[in-house]
Amino acid sequence: MPETTPIHLDEFLKLHPADLADRLQRLPLEEAQRILPDLPPTLAARALAELEHDRQHELLKALPIQKLTPLLAELPPNVVADLVPALPPSARRTTLDALPAEQRQRVQALLRYASDTAGGIMSDRFITLREDMTVEAVRELLRAHAQEERTEDVAYLYVTDAAQRLVGIVSLRDLVFRRAERRMSEVMNRDVKFLRADDDQEKTAQRFEHYHYLGLPVLDQEGRLVGVVKASDALEVAQAEATEDMQLMVGLSGEERALTPWQTAVRRRLPWLYINLATAFLAAFVVSLFESTIARWTALAVFLPVIAGQGGNAGMQTITVIVRDMALGEIAPGDGRRALFKEMMLGLVNGLAVGVVVGMIGWWWKGSFALGVVACAAMVLNQLSAAFAGVAIPFGLKALRIDPALASSIFVTTVTDVAGFFFFLGLALLAMRWFGA
Amino acid sequence: MPETTPIHLDEFLKLHPADLADRLQRLPLEEAQRILPDLPPTLAARALAELEHDRQHELLKALPIQKLTPLLAELPPNVVADLVPALPPSARRTTLDALPAEQRQRVQALLRYASDTAGGIMSDRFITLREDMTVEAVRELLRAHAQEERTEDVAYLYVTDAAQRLVGIVSLRDLVFRRAERRMSEVMNRDVKFLRADDDQEKTAQRFEHYHYLGLPVLDQEGRLVGVVKASDALEVAQAEATEDMQLMVGLSGEERALTPWQTAVRRRLPWLYINLATAFLAAFVVSLFESTIARWTALAVFLPVIAGQGGNAGMQTITVIVRDMALGEIAPGDGRRALFKEMMLGLVNGLAVGVVVGMIGWWWKGSFALGVVACAAMVLNQLSAAFAGVAIPFGLKALRIDPALASSIFVTTVTDVAGFFFFLGLALLAMRWFGA
Repeated sequence: MPETTPIHLDEFLKLHPADLADRLQRLPLEEAQRILPDLPPTLAARALAELEHDRQHELLKALPIQKLTPLLAELPPNVVADLVPALPPSARRTTLDALPAEQRQRVQALLRYASDTAGGIMSDRFITLREDMTVEAVRELLRAHAQEERTEDVAYLYVTDAAQRLVGIVSLRDLVFRRAERRMSEVMNRDVKFLRADDDQEKTAQRFEHYHYLGLPVLDQEGRLVGVVKASDALEVAQAEATEDMQLMVGLSGEERALTPWQTAVRRRLPWLYINLATAFLAAFVVSLFESTIARWTALAVFLPVIAGQGGNAGMQTITVIVRDMALGEIAPGDGRRALFKEMMLGLVNGLAVGVVVGMIGWWWKGSFALGVVACAAMVLNQLSAAFAGVAIPFGLKALRIDPALASSIFVTTVTDVAGFFFFLGLALLAMRWFGA
Repeated sequence: MPETTPIHLDEFLKLHPADLADRLQRLPLEEAQRILPDLPPTLAARALAELEHDRQHELLKALPIQKLTPLLAELPPNVVADLVPALPPSARRTTLDALPAEQRQRVQALLRYASDTAGGIMSDRFITLREDMTVEAVRELLRAHAQEERTEDVAYLYVTDAAQRLVGIVSLRDLVFRRAERRMSEVMNRDVKFLRADDDQEKTAQRFEHYHYLGLPVLDQEGRLVGVVKASDALEVAQAEATEDMQLMVGLSGEERALTPWQTAVRRRLPWLYINLATAFLAAFVVSLFESTIARWTALAVFLPVIAGQGGNAGMQTITVIVRDMALGEIAPGDGRRALFKEMMLGLVNGLAVGVVVGMIGWWWKGSFALGVVACAAMVLNQLSAAFAGVAIPFGLKALRIDPALASSIFVTTVTDVAGFFFFLGLALLAMRWFGA
């Protein structure tokens, strides 16, 4: 063993798995890869489960399979199911086959659910009861199972019928507070809020935010209980989801971090920069249509950044509000008309408020009243385009079943650039023709 | 009572408070104001607590104080403390005075904490135990308090010493699973993760995401237990925080929703549009310095939107990654240098990749090799400026103790516009002088 390792190990052994994960995340990759196999399997496994996806992948790739299996055997099935897709494709089958039979079956059952659904987030560790059990009988049952990993994160217990369909929910506090001879049928809450296994992760997070429960049961199509989602896992997903939307809006993968290696970041960002380039040339094409107008009146070129800047900012304001409300489920498809009306009113008022200032500056700076009028009118039309595009693009993407956040800032600024330049330069051309400005 | 009300009421009485809140949020304001006083106080109060801040304010404003007090008396102190700031300033004192003495004291204690800190999110309902109590004694204690509102959301119990300092934590499952004669000192976990009352809400959410607990205790400066934060409340805060950052970045208040009245939205957005206007005129000023250059070579004007568009998009990509990592606490102040290196490498590679394409298009479209070279070089310099500004602006704002998200998209596009136009038009001027291009 190299001399430097023990120093690190001693220090790492005392850490909470989440804190160890932080350290493994921030260490140089080679060092993290060297340390991981020397850690006790339970601690290593729990830390691994907390890592960012990219780092998980890098560490698992470097781990020989005879080190990997004992490590995975320590983890609950849902955590193993989250890690399996991070393994190199060739290693997935072998790794699964090396797991103990019961764990393998449970992992495979969880792997059937897409990772961005309630089924993909849920744990399969929960305790089911029958309606006719007494509080005392349940307490006995729990004491008997106290050592089992299945009881680890219990907050609620679930009452099911003979067909495994969920009929009620009992909280641990009921078991402590209620009298020993009470039956579950008297104690349980029948108005159970639940998730469907195929609910997407946005909906999952919304239901937690809405109802404030510590955990929610997950049912399959037949109403059978198949898993449980914890509030803290939904929190992680909600946060990932919200920040992913921020990234998608500007053409990022949703998984980039400040310290992601630049080579990885290039592969992810460059395609979007090329898409943005294509849309920027659309705007350039509009300007080129008016090249002779600009040649005769170069002050127009000076105002292009103002038109583009204001339209882009207003469009981003609108789209950010809409994308946020869609992500949090606070706006329904039927609200589109009301949202559009609001944004158009805003565009009109803000357009006039900004347009008058721009017009005055144009008049004063370039000494041309016509330029002022053209700039003011173009600004109003530009703000209205921004409002329209800011609502229409996310609603349109949603109708096409595309994530409304996806590259939406690129699309909206394309519209505001193209429309803004067209109105501004077009009106300028008309002004020159009519008034010889 | 008007004839239409009973129909609504019947329907509303069956709803979960969170679902009722959804309805009150979406009803026309007048209708919501009319219905609220007719609802049973408990239901109305719980729904009110779930509303968006703006709607809470509107509904509370319209409620006569004799209707308000019984409603508030139904709510836990932390919810009342959240609602008080939404009252019209003149009504706050009177409302507090009308509350029962114990509730008033508890509300006032909670109001001492800023609303964006752990103290501002926490509940003061928790159960404290002593180290020498047995499991059986605690079960008895809980049964005796079963009807008290204080036990409502229990997940953990807290063991304190004579000075109210937290010494350990016991989960409800310990009470169910462990033997009756065990003492708290044997059962409790001494390695307690906790929050400080003045920890900000970002840090609070981070600790939940990190440790995955159902609740975290809140300590004052002396280590005394003063409250408890639930995972689901932290989830709500985390989501609000992440989406607030999205809004702040583009110059929104962080509280705007798709259906916020347009008059309110104008007041909040217009100031930022004016700030953006000032910065856009900076870019316009740079262009104006080169007006005579553009007059002789109008093809340059056509490329301005391409320069601005690519710089703006790249800058937004960088700043979005940095702001996200800062908000989630995944990047430390000391990481600035590494993040800057990564972004500069990205800017160089992406700048070359995009610049070559832009240069080729410029050469082919306008038939000028010089234009192609100038556009390519300007694109590389522009992407490097975007990278630098995208890192320097949020780190700079943070160093000044300003939220790094605040209007950062406006600042970063100012830098990319000004630098981009300056490099592009400046290089074009040099090319014209040296090569007569």
